Amino acid sequence: MKFDAIAFDADDTLWHNMNLFDNSQNKFRDLLLPDHSPDWINERLYAAETRNLEIFGYGVKGFTLSMIETAIELTEGRITANEIQSILDVGKTMLKTPAQLLDNVQHVIHELSHVHTLMLITKGDLFDQERKIAQSGLADYFTHVEILSNKSEADYQRILDRYNLSADRFLMIGNSLRSDILPVVAIGGQAVHIPYQITWQHEIATKEEQSKHTYHQLEAIAQLPVLIDELCR
Amino acid sequence: MKFDAIAFDADDTLWHNMNLFDNSQNKFRDLLLPDHSPDWINERLYAAETRNLEIFGYGVKGFTLSMIETAIELTEGRITANEIQSILDVGKTMLKTPAQLLDNVQHVIHELSHVHTLMLITKGDLFDQERKIAQSGLADYFTHVEILSNKSEADYQRILDRYNLSADRFLMIGNSLRSDILPVVAIGGQAVHIPYQITWQHEIATKEEQSKHTYHQLEAIAQLPVLIDELCR
Repeated sequence: MKFDAIAFDADDTLWHNMNLFDNSQNKFRDLLLPDHSPDWINERLYAAETRNLEIFGYGVKGFTLSMIETAIELTEGRITANEIQSILDVGKTMLKTPAQLLDNVQHVIHELSHVHTLMLITKGDLFDQERKIAQSGLADYFTHVEILSNKSEADYQRILDRYNLSADRFLMIGNSLRSDILPVVAIGGQAVHIPYQITWQHEIATKEEQSKHTYHQLEAIAQLPVLIDELCR
Repeated sequence: MKFDAIAFDADDTLWHNMNLFDNSQNKFRDLLLPDHSPDWINERLYAAETRNLEIFGYGVKGFTLSMIETAIELTEGRITANEIQSILDVGKTMLKTPAQLLDNVQHVIHELSHVHTLMLITKGDLFDQERKIAQSGLADYFTHVEILSNKSEADYQRILDRYNLSADRFLMIGNSLRSDILPVVAIGGQAVHIPYQITWQHEIATKEEQSKHTYHQLEAIAQLPVLIDELCR
């Protein structure tokens, strides 16, 4: 058995992403301390992100707008324009920071690309994802790159249909159970979950969601080639 | 001769877009008057949009962040947080406004879809474009939908390759010479320019760019079926 395609998530699977958001959120929190507790600031920011998700979608620009909105809310309009500019600058810095690869990603992807058809399937802001892919130095390893606004079962099915891939010969690798693993398994694909050190609250799957499906789990991408060899036997 | 595919731009070709930006820009200008002249406000906002384009890309979220930045700059930091919230709300309203079709679009697309393979090729924010396509009621007429961060010759060539389309049997229809017409003609495709009532400064092609290529020009989409019939003879 050989896979028709092996697809990778990007953020927090191939390169660091959540730590960039965490660092930015720390700077944001510092701006609003000591008027509010760190937990309360986090909670209000997460509430704004969740509330705005249906009009902003995922990505840094929406996150930046939600930080600005939360700062206005928490200071009851007392935050200064210059402080808002500093939040805007935090967002701009994120959009200019090159993708930093996780350990062993470069040689694992290089090695797998000799034998398998590799794809990149990522979610988020089109422009920013394309920038990170280009700067990662990995673009040439992937036969197809798909940037989606969401990763539902229907979204994965559309990709399988587009490239004429059979679900049972499709393998997805990613750090998010909710976005990378469960929808793929649900449509008959195989999946390998490699958790990142931090999971965004929004991406945490419930125990019930997890128990319905089976998938592979690894601690690090370095273990992936051996697992794929076993699955292909 | 029959076209392999007939592709449409979306913003300002199928539905109104620039008037939404113009209305928002008017509200933004009202906020900063009478401290600055309308022309100066427009000029500084356009400068911010252009400067930020390489980190924000196209779309409403980047436009909103540029409006906030321009307001801080033009008031030298004196704008209040509540006024910034009102700019943020202008952006949110844009992201919630359903796409309003141009005259005759619905029946022209419906009619053409009986005979031709139709595609949608649009540029901008992935999440917002998908929302407008879904709300337009036109999604089912298009065999393929491509949302790009940019529309260069290479971007069009990639689409032709992906769907195995021959350039000389590919027709693109759009309102922007720079994004919809010139790159398509440059790679050997045919194109129909249907100007919108307003053209964003950034999309204006120079006389030199225009003179190098030939393309068709119509005043309104209602004239399109007759032209396509002639081209297919």
